[in-house]
Amino acid sequence: MKSRAAVAFEAGKPLQIVEIDVEPPRKGEVLVKITHTALCHTDAYTLSGVDPEGVFPAVLGHEGGGIVVEVGEGVTSVKPGDHVIPLYTAECGKCKFCTSGKTNLCSSVRETQGKGLMPDGTTRFSYNGQPIYHYMGTSTFSEYTVVAEVSLAKVNPEAPLEKVCLLGCGVTTGIGAVHNTAKVKEGDTVAVFGLGAIGLAVIQGAVQAKAGRIIAIDTNPNKFILAKALGATDCVNPKDHDRPIQDVIVEMTDGGVDFSFECIGNVDVMRSALECCHKGWGESVIIGVAAAGQEIRTRPFQLVTGRVWRGSAFGGVKGRTQLPGMVEQVMAGELDLDPYITHTLPLERINEAFDLMHEGKSIRAVIHY
Amino acid sequence: MKSRAAVAFEAGKPLQIVEIDVEPPRKGEVLVKITHTALCHTDAYTLSGVDPEGVFPAVLGHEGGGIVVEVGEGVTSVKPGDHVIPLYTAECGKCKFCTSGKTNLCSSVRETQGKGLMPDGTTRFSYNGQPIYHYMGTSTFSEYTVVAEVSLAKVNPEAPLEKVCLLGCGVTTGIGAVHNTAKVKEGDTVAVFGLGAIGLAVIQGAVQAKAGRIIAIDTNPNKFILAKALGATDCVNPKDHDRPIQDVIVEMTDGGVDFSFECIGNVDVMRSALECCHKGWGESVIIGVAAAGQEIRTRPFQLVTGRVWRGSAFGGVKGRTQLPGMVEQVMAGELDLDPYITHTLPLERINEAFDLMHEGKSIRAVIHY
Repeated sequence: MKSRAAVAFEAGKPLQIVEIDVEPPRKGEVLVKITHTALCHTDAYTLSGVDPEGVFPAVLGHEGGGIVVEVGEGVTSVKPGDHVIPLYTAECGKCKFCTSGKTNLCSSVRETQGKGLMPDGTTRFSYNGQPIYHYMGTSTFSEYTVVAEVSLAKVNPEAPLEKVCLLGCGVTTGIGAVHNTAKVKEGDTVAVFGLGAIGLAVIQGAVQAKAGRIIAIDTNPNKFILAKALGATDCVNPKDHDRPIQDVIVEMTDGGVDFSFECIGNVDVMRSALECCHKGWGESVIIGVAAAGQEIRTRPFQLVTGRVWRGSAFGGVKGRTQLPGMVEQVMAGELDLDPYITHTLPLERINEAFDLMHEGKSIRAVIHY
Repeated sequence: MKSRAAVAFEAGKPLQIVEIDVEPPRKGEVLVKITHTALCHTDAYTLSGVDPEGVFPAVLGHEGGGIVVEVGEGVTSVKPGDHVIPLYTAECGKCKFCTSGKTNLCSSVRETQGKGLMPDGTTRFSYNGQPIYHYMGTSTFSEYTVVAEVSLAKVNPEAPLEKVCLLGCGVTTGIGAVHNTAKVKEGDTVAVFGLGAIGLAVIQGAVQAKAGRIIAIDTNPNKFILAKALGATDCVNPKDHDRPIQDVIVEMTDGGVDFSFECIGNVDVMRSALECCHKGWGESVIIGVAAAGQEIRTRPFQLVTGRVWRGSAFGGVKGRTQLPGMVEQVMAGELDLDPYITHTLPLERINEAFDLMHEGKSIRAVIHY
């Protein structure tokens, strides 16, 4: 079948809106009509050409929502008409990781997903007879996309897909990191580095966890308005200080924070985030994705004196098990996604959405197909 | 009073056995007759002159045992005749750290201790009228030493001090790191880097925790005999492999270990220890003390994909609360300290004990006063 899609034909070039061919779903696969998609820095990172796993041409996009159109052989957990959120972190329920009870990093489709292919090693997309690669197992920048069954969370059909599509990445990542990875408790002091969608979601998660103090850090003071509206108690701009920001935070918190979150992908900020943690128990969670080859560093003394360095992928959330519940929270008014949506645009203007993100003008621009 | 002592008059020089003057204990202080002391790499590190906190002349030594001789004003928890183990990690029970329930890093005497002074900012040692500094709050290389009350664990007087003195540092550090920091569980796979006293104690701790597999790693294959005797299931010499040791261990464990422990103080080994951990849940504990200024590094992806990097000081053990119980374990035969004691020497031959350690010939040489 034909599908409108924003295709990344080449690294570093704008996406092109074209009509691609989409093959029917094969065994264990599902054809989804994407109704809405947002975009995030990971899409931009891959599009830039710096991502060593990036392959072109490809249909990018990994933060979307849609409706099942057709299921392939053996698919039992979803049927046509079901509302779904594609997952770049699958959940098969059977692999060593899923059954460990310790992680959300399912290995079932990881290898082919990383190569831009479906689990059988082929692609369902083509343009003028030339194959087009998939991306993160989701490819939400095509109106019709094919996704592995294990990579789909079935959600309440009453939920507004134009909002809950955001649970496909950033918001879930931030909130999940607070609850699943850090396990923030009532009264804890939290520092959040970077106030994009993930950082704002960390603030929301910290508020849910009843954190006592939530310190929001960004070099763009425009971000502080929304951060405060969502619950940040302090806002700090590193540019206002002539010493390392970790020293500033350690001083304002009488020894450091209980938990810090790096939501940027900058290895120097990751160091600051670790070192602003309280001696003896402070834990720092890396959420941001650094550029290939970059390394974090610190003196081991930081860890020997009780700080803990961890990371979080998709907020430690098991998508098929946990996303439906987060969607219910949205519907119950317990989780407000409206503050994230600063722009809505049609697919044809998706490159403008990238521009808005690069300029720091948007939190999330949601594409309406 | 006069006391025999091995004094570090100058960095990089052998200790000198001299008779020093020891002042009586002041408020909150205790005079202890040290009966036995071992030595460890931290003493050697400071003696070498590389330790930026090292001050000279000083009485080193931090792994000892002895008997209370006299108590200063206000001391209530010990009395003359009590058997004690000096603690370089104090436990006041009152500070922010002690009351947090999250760490053993008591702050009560930390600041002065780091400067080689008693809590009131002075020293009790002198030689020919010149002050001599304390070390780690313990200074067990003097037959008579003055220690803060909060830095003394009172232990069963029936316990053999010539053995349980080892609980003052290395053995407790290794065993504690397994139970308190990593919390190893039955069936877990464990990797131990470096088979000195701490590494061997990690093996003992892992056996206590019923770890399923204990992989011992050292470049000196002579260490494997004792490691195996204590319970290591596999021994690996990185020199036998022409690829990174983390790759070897990941392969032999089908994905990596549940817990790894760095017991050397080498930042490159710390990286290997982290990277041999299993994706999704593996945790690495840094125990070794790296030289000043050295830094650990890795790709943040290692943490984002679920590995955790922590550290441990004195095995997370609260000395006054927990050491008495470990001493009871020794007396009940549940914790065997004999394998560690490879040499016993009189104080006069303490420099030989340093040589044996540097040559890798001893695990612990215990000095009998």
